Amino acid sequence: MTATETLTLSEIESLAFDALVAAGTSPENARPLAVATAMTEADGVASHGLAYIPIYVQHVECGKVDGQANPKVAHPRPAVITVDAATGFAHRAIDLGFEQLIPLAKEMGVAVLAVNNSYNCGVLGVHTQRLAQAGLMGFGFTNAPASIAPSGGAKPVVGTNPFSISAPGSDGTAALLIDQSASTIAKSEVMKHAREGKPVPQGWVLDADGQPTTDPDAGLKGSMVPSGGYKGVGIALTVELLAAAMTGATLGAVASPFSGTAGGPPKTGQFFIAIDPEVTSGGLFQEKLADLISAFRDQDGARLPGDGRQSARLRAATEGVSVNAALLERVRALI
Amino acid sequence: MTATETLTLSEIESLAFDALVAAGTSPENARPLAVATAMTEADGVASHGLAYIPIYVQHVECGKVDGQANPKVAHPRPAVITVDAATGFAHRAIDLGFEQLIPLAKEMGVAVLAVNNSYNCGVLGVHTQRLAQAGLMGFGFTNAPASIAPSGGAKPVVGTNPFSISAPGSDGTAALLIDQSASTIAKSEVMKHAREGKPVPQGWVLDADGQPTTDPDAGLKGSMVPSGGYKGVGIALTVELLAAAMTGATLGAVASPFSGTAGGPPKTGQFFIAIDPEVTSGGLFQEKLADLISAFRDQDGARLPGDGRQSARLRAATEGVSVNAALLERVRALI
Repeated sequence: MTATETLTLSEIESLAFDALVAAGTSPENARPLAVATAMTEADGVASHGLAYIPIYVQHVECGKVDGQANPKVAHPRPAVITVDAATGFAHRAIDLGFEQLIPLAKEMGVAVLAVNNSYNCGVLGVHTQRLAQAGLMGFGFTNAPASIAPSGGAKPVVGTNPFSISAPGSDGTAALLIDQSASTIAKSEVMKHAREGKPVPQGWVLDADGQPTTDPDAGLKGSMVPSGGYKGVGIALTVELLAAAMTGATLGAVASPFSGTAGGPPKTGQFFIAIDPEVTSGGLFQEKLADLISAFRDQDGARLPGDGRQSARLRAATEGVSVNAALLERVRALI
Repeated sequence: MTATETLTLSEIESLAFDALVAAGTSPENARPLAVATAMTEADGVASHGLAYIPIYVQHVECGKVDGQANPKVAHPRPAVITVDAATGFAHRAIDLGFEQLIPLAKEMGVAVLAVNNSYNCGVLGVHTQRLAQAGLMGFGFTNAPASIAPSGGAKPVVGTNPFSISAPGSDGTAALLIDQSASTIAKSEVMKHAREGKPVPQGWVLDADGQPTTDPDAGLKGSMVPSGGYKGVGIALTVELLAAAMTGATLGAVASPFSGTAGGPPKTGQFFIAIDPEVTSGGLFQEKLADLISAFRDQDGARLPGDGRQSARLRAATEGVSVNAALLERVRALI
């Protein structure tokens, strides 16, 4: 059995903050990322929580991220906010953008935020959730270095590009959260199998010639299988249009990797749309949302997207989060 | 070989218009639907072109659609347009909404259109394409009577709910068009197999107990398989949130069917988002879009979503469209 230690969410946040600052991140840039790290652990997505802190620290040290970046916010049209993340952490750029996006969406009925010159934003649902907590429908899109090939092709042109939707409940929480990538499986799972020298199941990856393989290393040199075939390519392309072409960020096809120390800043992007659903629905949104959620919940065994994370979050708030002891040791050594 | 006749696009439009008006549709309501019918035939989507005219006529006659409806447009917030389609054709409601949406999106940088009390809007890409032709990124969503069950459940709760994205080229055309449903295959294909008494391939439908079946009738009483499993449910749910919950329209779980004469108006909805991508990208959009399209096209055999429809459209403009002669006879008999 793996040794673990139980931490409160504020202990996780402090730990992440201290490690980031020790590596040379400014406190203003470290705080939003530390908060997101605690929220990610609360949601039960351990792969993207504290486990990423050593990578973030390495990326500050090698210059893939500028820990001291000062993101620039602009307001080029009444309902548009843009942020140049200046190759700093995405989280600070998104935080600064949301400060203006949220009141603007309430005033205008809809507003968008385009972030470029950015970096891996971690779990997308952590960001869209905040829009829902502010009473807005939140839509988020982020691009990543290319790993999905076009239908009929073999060379990756778009990332596993996730999107996330979060719907506001009547009580200041996210009533529903969708957060899914365009591939059948997360690339991190393939990398884990490669590290452990284990074959992957059929349907996860294709080799460099576009042929099915169970060899994770061949898959990492080839491409990820898009979820639902050409429809997964359509999702990845939609997200690429929003997060890269519509923000002026670097396309996944030419972006430097999110892992390792080579290639400099990836300069990828994020796009968010915030809409006041009571305005667009003429005041019917909460009633319709409740009926839609009931249609799922009233069936025995049926799963509503986001339910797993929601129950993890409720549990974490009172019981804390169990963290791998070896990982904790590595993070504490960074401080 | 099936007998066909070649018609120009304006002949198709006139035929559709005359049949709709003969059934009691007002000219203002018939025109946008006739134009969309010609555009749909031009795009090569014969299943949703003239083939739908007899169904539309039947639905005007039985009251599923009010052919004389007067949609009501409102502007509840600076960047939001809403249209109550008043149980009329979706096309007129969308037309009236777009008249205000397009200039508003250019002024504000982004604007949205929510349509409720609506009806089947036909091919969604026909609508988003118009936003791209106006120089905007167009996003469209429409809901349909439920036919997809939740993961772990068997009873349909959301429709095959398509979404469509259209990107503006620099020349006033749609440079790229994505238009895809949340199921592995269109429901109309299953209905066609049922009519012809042929089994469907595995992976298209599930029976009423949620079990795989190749019997199309069992599938029509059960549910459609979501594309990519739970991720397809996530797409259908996203579209349901936008097109129904956020417009105040009827949820797919309780909407009357789009086929047959029972149940009265379905009162489903549409949602459109229009964004000026040159504003959000700081003027880099066309360059990024061209690079993204090249990344697909530079690979032998790779397919870019929308290429098939685009070449059909170019061909149709000069050569006209070949239409099934028996269908033409049926449509002409309606006039």
